[in-house]
Amino acid sequence: MQQFSDWMHQVQGTMEAALAAFLPEAHSVPQRLHQAMRYAVLDGGKRVRPLLVFAAGALFDAPSAAMQRAAAAVEMIHAYSLVHDDMPCMDDDALRRGKPTVHVQYDEATALLVGDALQAQAFLVLAEADASIDAARRIAMLQLLGRASGSLGMCGGQAIDLASVGLSLSLAELEQMHKLKTGALLRASVLLGAWSGKPLSAAETDALEAYGTAIGLAFQVVDDILDATADSATLGKTAGKDAADNKPTYVSILGLAESKTLAEKLRNDAHQALAIFGDKARRLRELADLIVQRKA
Amino acid sequence: MQQFSDWMHQVQGTMEAALAAFLPEAHSVPQRLHQAMRYAVLDGGKRVRPLLVFAAGALFDAPSAAMQRAAAAVEMIHAYSLVHDDMPCMDDDALRRGKPTVHVQYDEATALLVGDALQAQAFLVLAEADASIDAARRIAMLQLLGRASGSLGMCGGQAIDLASVGLSLSLAELEQMHKLKTGALLRASVLLGAWSGKPLSAAETDALEAYGTAIGLAFQVVDDILDATADSATLGKTAGKDAADNKPTYVSILGLAESKTLAEKLRNDAHQALAIFGDKARRLRELADLIVQRKA
Repeated sequence: MQQFSDWMHQVQGTMEAALAAFLPEAHSVPQRLHQAMRYAVLDGGKRVRPLLVFAAGALFDAPSAAMQRAAAAVEMIHAYSLVHDDMPCMDDDALRRGKPTVHVQYDEATALLVGDALQAQAFLVLAEADASIDAARRIAMLQLLGRASGSLGMCGGQAIDLASVGLSLSLAELEQMHKLKTGALLRASVLLGAWSGKPLSAAETDALEAYGTAIGLAFQVVDDILDATADSATLGKTAGKDAADNKPTYVSILGLAESKTLAEKLRNDAHQALAIFGDKARRLRELADLIVQRKA
Repeated sequence: MQQFSDWMHQVQGTMEAALAAFLPEAHSVPQRLHQAMRYAVLDGGKRVRPLLVFAAGALFDAPSAAMQRAAAAVEMIHAYSLVHDDMPCMDDDALRRGKPTVHVQYDEATALLVGDALQAQAFLVLAEADASIDAARRIAMLQLLGRASGSLGMCGGQAIDLASVGLSLSLAELEQMHKLKTGALLRASVLLGAWSGKPLSAAETDALEAYGTAIGLAFQVVDDILDATADSATLGKTAGKDAADNKPTYVSILGLAESKTLAEKLRNDAHQALAIFGDKARRLRELADLIVQRKA
């Protein structure tokens, strides 16, 4: 079997091409908007959500074309959220994935429209999936993406995050915020990948929900650890922002050592959730390891 | 048959209740975001797009429940676009529908999230349509909404609008901008209403596209006329903005008299496009009249 790193680079390469194909071309009108959309999405990022789609799709031998659409949709939602989060009225960040953020490279109005247009494009790409996924399953996938992205998912988590600046949250409140802010789309990535192969049984859904919840929280715990310990050059974004912005984090609530213990526990939870899938879940296990052990 | 004004008020009342039901409740977490989403959508606006959905649905006796979902989806897209357009980095407007704009009433970050969450909610509401519309038709409707909203539709028109400030556009360029900026969603409203009843023949699609194109342009011509001639109190938004912002308009290119002639010609085009539908198209005809004759 392929080494994990080879598989990962192969998926990343496949998705770079798929995203380039699913975005409007740079020379089509309005050109500046399309160039900025491509700037926001292409040539950057670890593609964690697409990797989750492909790893979950591998459980049920999902066709690559179907996984590419699901992965492109979640990655476009993720990319739009970064563009909007970086704007001056939100986190006011100048650096993302080692490049100037969209409102710095272009302008604020363009950044606003880039995010808006990417969200529409995400739903369009998923709605246009080929015949390997019947219409009823595509509808279920679109509903999942809508819930994961909206006010009871990612946008809702952002709103709680905004409201929590300067407050001391309990661990439960912090967890609830992250379950929405980053967790909802990570969980959706796992389920959309699996659904790219077949409809799921209740037991399969439960197992993948448990896995998605564990890696979603692990992802955020590690983000907080890295924000407190790594430098901007390594992260490709401004380090130490959370403390500077007076935002509650796992590190500020639990301390560094206990945060690392929690990340390790969540990795174990993720592995255990996958037991029913046997060796087919190998890539999902490896991704849980990657999420916890990453350095950036 | 019911008077037009009675029919219009009935649809507006139905849609106020439908929108209230399709939006997350004000007391659900995050409360501030949900309150702001409801502030942005409820209790305001002429509901032109929902009226188009219901008028086109009447051609094919579409079930009210199906029309309510389609109408709520387009109205949420419209509402999100207004929230984002009014932000300081775009048009920087303080008044909308006679009320303070969302970023004034709440704050900029909340306005950004309100728009983002409303867009997700629009796709979700349409994806969740009941069984009167089979999954394949719902997929086609979602694709239409995605195209009408994104960079080749409404967002694309916004981008061209931004880029045209201070430039002298030709009439053809101005028309192309408005076909995307407001026309795409108005055309989509007509088609989504009809599809709420049944799949369309090619001739029916062509007729409704022609109608939608004509009323879409008429809507903008009249908007430009009103912006130049009405006062803020009547409009419920800041009058004279276009000239102040040095934006090209039909009035600045054609003059007032010729703009009024054009609006009248487009109304006739709209009426003629409906010929194949006979008396069933009465509401669509009356809406074309309303769009051209409105005072705000």
